[in-house]
Formats: sequence, C-alpha cells, structure tokens
Amino acid sequence: MIPPNDRGLLLGDGLFETLLAVDGAVRHLEAHLDRMAAGCVALGLPDLDREAARGLVRAAPGEAGLTAGRAAVRLTLTAGSGGRGLDRPDAPVCVLLASCAPAPPAGAPARAVVAGVRRNEGSPASRLKTLSYLDNVLARAQARRAGADEALMLNNRGWLACASAGNLFWLEGGVLATPALDCGVLAGLARGRVMAAAGALGLEVREAHAGIEALATADAVFLTNSLTGVRPLVSLDGRALGEDPHVAALAAQVG
Amino acid sequence: MIPPNDRGLLLGDGLFETLLAVDGAVRHLEAHLDRMAAGCVALGLPDLDREAARGLVRAAPGEAGLTAGRAAVRLTLTAGSGGRGLDRPDAPVCVLLASCAPAPPAGAPARAVVAGVRRNEGSPASRLKTLSYLDNVLARAQARRAGADEALMLNNRGWLACASAGNLFWLEGGVLATPALDCGVLAGLARGRVMAAAGALGLEVREAHAGIEALATADAVFLTNSLTGVRPLVSLDGRALGEDPHVAALAAQVG
Repeated sequence: MIPPNDRGLLLGDGLFETLLAVDGAVRHLEAHLDRMAAGCVALGLPDLDREAARGLVRAAPGEAGLTAGRAAVRLTLTAGSGGRGLDRPDAPVCVLLASCAPAPPAGAPARAVVAGVRRNEGSPASRLKTLSYLDNVLARAQARRAGADEALMLNNRGWLACASAGNLFWLEGGVLATPALDCGVLAGLARGRVMAAAGALGLEVREAHAGIEALATADAVFLTNSLTGVRPLVSLDGRALGEDPHVAALAAQVG
Repeated sequence: MIPPNDRGLLLGDGLFETLLAVDGAVRHLEAHLDRMAAGCVALGLPDLDREAARGLVRAAPGEAGLTAGRAAVRLTLTAGSGGRGLDRPDAPVCVLLASCAPAPPAGAPARAVVAGVRRNEGSPASRLKTLSYLDNVLARAQARRAGADEALMLNNRGWLACASAGNLFWLEGGVLATPALDCGVLAGLARGRVMAAAGALGLEVREAHAGIEALATADAVFLTNSLTGVRPLVSLDGRALGEDPHVAALAAQVG
C-alpha cells in the first residue's frame, strides 16, 4: 500500500517501465533499468537503486504466478512522500514497486484513430515514461470510443509523435521513418531494435518531422512497444492502410 | 493508504483541488466542487460524489488540528483501481481523499523565472487540476534552482500561460490582462474573482494571447491562487518589475 502523501499519487512525480517476461524470464532488463536511471537524472530525482529495482522486477512474475508464457511486469518509481505543494523535500526518498499481469498478444494488427489530445513536445516528460500519463489515457479512451485499438498523437506543431502506448513507424519506397525524439517521443526500446534491424533488410532509416499526411502515402504503418513488439496498423480513422513484407521481417528480427 | 494498482498513482488519472481554510472554515467550497465535477466530466470519469467530497474537505482541518488561522486543504480524486495498461475498467470506482497542512502566507511578493518546460495547450488537462502535474513540478524546481519563488510557463506557441501554481496577470495603462484559457490555462477561482473585481476599479479586462514581451512593458505583474490570493511579482529572470496601486486594491477586493 502507498501512503496518501506520495508524490507519485499527488503530482504524477515519478517514472515507470513496462517489461516483457516470457516463462518467468524478463527481457531486456538492463536496458529498461538504464532508461529509468536516465529518467531519474532528467527529473532531478536521486539515482535509481538498480539492485532493488532488478530484484523487484525479477521476482514479480513468480509472485503473480505468471511464470508460464508471456507476462507484463510494471516497475514504478515514485518521488516518495512529501509535504504540501509542488516543491520536493530536500532529500526525496523514492519508492519502487513492481507488479505483473498477463501480457497482451504480440503483433496483433491494430486499427487507429488520430487523437485530439496533443503531445507536449515542450516538456522533457514527453520523452520519458512518467507517472503523469493522463494525456495518453485520454488519447486511448478516444480510440476506444471510436471502436479502435490505438490513438496516434500529434504534437502541438502538428507533427506525428507516437501512439498512446507505443512508437510509430512507416515505410515508403525503401525508407523506414519514425518521428524524431524532439517531436515529443519516448526512445522506445523496441523502437531502437527496429531501427537497428532495418539496415540488414536494406532499409534506410529516417527520423522525421512529418505531419499526418506522411501516412497517407506510406506503403505500410506499424507500432512498436516492449510488450506487443511490431504491430501492423490496418486502418487509420477508418481508412485502410497498406501492407509491406518488411513489417513481418522486422517483427521477426526484433521478437 | 492507497492500493498500488490505483490509476492516480500509476497514470496520473485523477484530479485535485486546493482550498483555503481560515479558522477551520473552508472558503469557496462549492466553487471548488463545481470545478472538480466539471473536471470529472472532461476526463470521462463518473460524476463527482459531492456529498462525500464536501464531508472530507470540511473535516480535514479538524482532523489535522489546524482550526486556528490559515490552512490548506487538498482534495484528491483518483480514477480508482484498474487493471494493466491505459484502458480504464468499464465502471471505474473513484477514490476521494483529503488532507490539510499549514497554508503559506497570502500576498507575499515573489521573484519568478521563465520556465524551460512548456504548457501543453493541446491537451484538455492543461485547463484542469489533474494528478498529472509533473510539468508544474519541473517548472517549480527550475525556479528554486535559480533562487526564485515561482516559474512562469509559456505554451508551445510561445504564449504566456500561467505560473507553476497560479494564474498570471499584468497591468498596462488601465488594462488588466491575463492569458486566455486556450493558452493552456486553468480557470482559477481567484483568477475569476480578480476579473470580476477589476471593473469596479475602472480597469478594462482582457484575456490575452501574448508572448513574454508583454511583461516587459507592463506597469505591474502579479499571480493569483486560492491559497495565496494576489501575489505581486517583483522580478522576472532577475529584472525588477514595476508596482501599481491597483494590485493592492485587487488583493483587498478578493481576499
């Protein structure tokens, strides 16, 4: 249980990671811890206690009885208890917790809509997985109301940024494009693996500042995240999107 | 204590209000409840249980032993417990909690800096007091590092929006200006009272879309919130700001 003066609860002051576990073994654990540690630095929080975080994550599938098949481990770090108002205490004591739940299937095709809520490219939080995730919640809720699975988020300049829970890619004429991080984009771990794998498939990789019109002429569009891997987008706002064999090839490379 | 699967904690999915209590009596309680109720509608949450919220707020000063002098009551509403991921349960059960702490003094002059983090004008959350408040935390932390009291936040278009914990006003030649709500601004209750009081002082009120340069030529600049009332800004990024007798007159009107 969490005390009611926790700054993660009161102010969204903290970070999280979502990790895939397969048969009880957590994938890419050190990369996730690297990212959370960098987030602590970016937010001015004390250094991540990597050993404590590692122990919580590794124990989570077993404690949830999810050591067979695919499971999702969530690691949460809060800025800990604090007094009234925005100012952190002089020496914050962060709180770490982990939980585990069944994971969604990998690679399931998705229908998307364009979200009304924009990504805040002017905040460092837009490039981190923080506990202030309400914009993503609102975007996803809009998608569900429209009968879709995911929402694409533009930033305030109208540039493509990401999905509510994943990075965005599109293919066009041998180029694999994805929004640049300064569009307000998390440096997703699956995003990084897809970019690294693209060269071996003969694809040129481009980090783009592009509007929604870039998707209208794309050969194919897909999303990535650590849990569901490479997920083809089959429609956007009800319009069918194309297919491209590179999507399956990338999915096979990054797992 | 709060369960670790609370969506307020995990995703910043919820709202809050900060209310002034004087000698145990909470000021403007129904107006605060109106705003939280409107926030529930905007976020797609179940209707606010006003009676429960009212009871928690009224009891908070006594439970904290703060029934003499000024105290700050915080009312927090979370979207309640949920499963893994962004999607809310079909029937969320919101959680309400209240706490009370000594209030900061009213009307203390403040030094401000311009924050690096921007206000997300493209999200409805920028016009609500939500639990996803990390951008404000980061702005305030920047001000503290600079030896200042508060941070002014611009939006992604470069327009003035607000302070990390308050609304922004400036006076120039008989005009009282404040950023328009669509700049990414909370409709502060003290903001509303200041706007209502300005006419009686012979001031024209203007809701503005203005850049930081508007403050360079202002006669005086001040902040407002429910706890600290009208708070004159004495400097911005180290440059002294002017004084105007209307600021004290407005402070006297709105309490």
